[in-house]
Amino acid sequence: MIDFIAVDWGTSSFRLWAMEATGQVVAARSSKEGMSTLQRPDFAPALEKHLECLSVSKDIPIVICGMAGAASGWQEAQYIPTPTRLCDIPAHAIKVSGTERDVRILPGGAQCDAARPDVMRGEETILLGAALESGGDGLFCLPGTHSKWARVVNGELVSFSTAMTGELFARLAQGSTLSQFVDSSIFDEDVFVQSVRDAANSPASFTHALFGMRAGPLLNVLAPETIASRLSGLLIGLELAGVRADETGPVSLVSSGPLSRNYQLALKELGLDFQVLDADELVRKGLTFAAQKLWPMPVYH
Amino acid sequence: MIDFIAVDWGTSSFRLWAMEATGQVVAARSSKEGMSTLQRPDFAPALEKHLECLSVSKDIPIVICGMAGAASGWQEAQYIPTPTRLCDIPAHAIKVSGTERDVRILPGGAQCDAARPDVMRGEETILLGAALESGGDGLFCLPGTHSKWARVVNGELVSFSTAMTGELFARLAQGSTLSQFVDSSIFDEDVFVQSVRDAANSPASFTHALFGMRAGPLLNVLAPETIASRLSGLLIGLELAGVRADETGPVSLVSSGPLSRNYQLALKELGLDFQVLDADELVRKGLTFAAQKLWPMPVYH
Repeated sequence: MIDFIAVDWGTSSFRLWAMEATGQVVAARSSKEGMSTLQRPDFAPALEKHLECLSVSKDIPIVICGMAGAASGWQEAQYIPTPTRLCDIPAHAIKVSGTERDVRILPGGAQCDAARPDVMRGEETILLGAALESGGDGLFCLPGTHSKWARVVNGELVSFSTAMTGELFARLAQGSTLSQFVDSSIFDEDVFVQSVRDAANSPASFTHALFGMRAGPLLNVLAPETIASRLSGLLIGLELAGVRADETGPVSLVSSGPLSRNYQLALKELGLDFQVLDADELVRKGLTFAAQKLWPMPVYH
Repeated sequence: MIDFIAVDWGTSSFRLWAMEATGQVVAARSSKEGMSTLQRPDFAPALEKHLECLSVSKDIPIVICGMAGAASGWQEAQYIPTPTRLCDIPAHAIKVSGTERDVRILPGGAQCDAARPDVMRGEETILLGAALESGGDGLFCLPGTHSKWARVVNGELVSFSTAMTGELFARLAQGSTLSQFVDSSIFDEDVFVQSVRDAANSPASFTHALFGMRAGPLLNVLAPETIASRLSGLLIGLELAGVRADETGPVSLVSSGPLSRNYQLALKELGLDFQVLDADELVRKGLTFAAQKLWPMPVYH
């Protein structure tokens, strides 16, 4: 039986789960209908299409996290400033107007510090899920187009920082003087790990190292097929150079797939302890908690 | 009277000077017909068009430096490996085949070091011009799409390093999540200088600082019109972070225009002594020296 609908609506992807109040998944759907592909009037029909496929009746409530709540998304859910208790996030959900269904969008998090301004949308719900699991204390790394590093203490999101790692990779892999050499289908672990070390040891040499990937193949001292691994290693190494090894406790790495493998190799190379958490599971936990706060539901075990 | 033709044929621009043997400029022409806009068969006609405009007779020799000598240029002039005496460069010029005129292309310089591979085309001729002027010893900074830092000792190009500063600026100014904020027509000196300091003090925070330029305007803690200055400052600061203040003697900054102003501000901010040299004048000096080596000409004063 479907009790509520949970949606993670990001920049480039849409993921929906039909859920029981217990947090059990009844059905799942996903598509490439991310926020960046939609105009404001497109959101309601895009969601409706998926709900109809699952025959979700009109009285089932829907909770959404992610970029759907951005100013350029479906309807803006204002950022919650840090520091904030993660379990307080659902109280700041907005109710989407102009739809028959009860649709709520969770707010993002913002660090309104002029020296270190930062924003997140979606990751706060993952962190909420983690906080429910184990208190969620510690340093979280959520890699991606814009990698997030978040510090959680006693269930409170204290501070966070975003590195533009994935976007820099994409900008350099396409349309730069390096593009012709970047073949992301090949992964060379040795080159990757060496490159992580290079960037972490000498972050000031980063832009020089970038040009070395142009000159190296020209001079036959660097194999072109290793360039994608080196670029990824340099970027992740630069990102990690800012993480202090004396941070308390292990890093909680929230990711999966090849990106998770790369971050695990990098963290290991730099001597940082870590544990790996599953982003999908955590975001569903966070959305289930939010749904229970918004529409208290009996849980039958 | 025209004794020879000097050409600096780069990736994005073509510059030609009709010269007297003394180094005096008789006439000049320039265009956007850079190497990147031309296929191999286009080079000869592109050059001929400019020569006809100046009625240059077929017996006047032509010396070229820059990307025209790249593998993907007009005809490849193999790199000269470092260390190399700058005054030896003209001896390695290649003669272009398939043209009625006597056209020579100077080689580029290469650092065939697997740990620090690097290449230059055009800058070696500027450095040759500088070496003729004052011995040319010291540390040279030639800013641009690919900024070069070259160490010259006793007229010998000992080593060099390229930073992808200008290209990174371009890649982030167009088509990135920062693009909407980057207005390069506005320059804020205070923001620029602060950003140089930020990146030089903390190069490991570079990719975090990039995302701050996305979050700052969203949170109204950073004025969007300052983003171009901050991006430029961060990139130049990161480039300079790798330059040691204990390098002997002042940096010779070879540039002009707004880019020169930015590098001067950055060098000053980081306490690096510098002198400013004119790139156009130096490249003509280098090309004139090469012409005299290739076709010894009497100099009438």
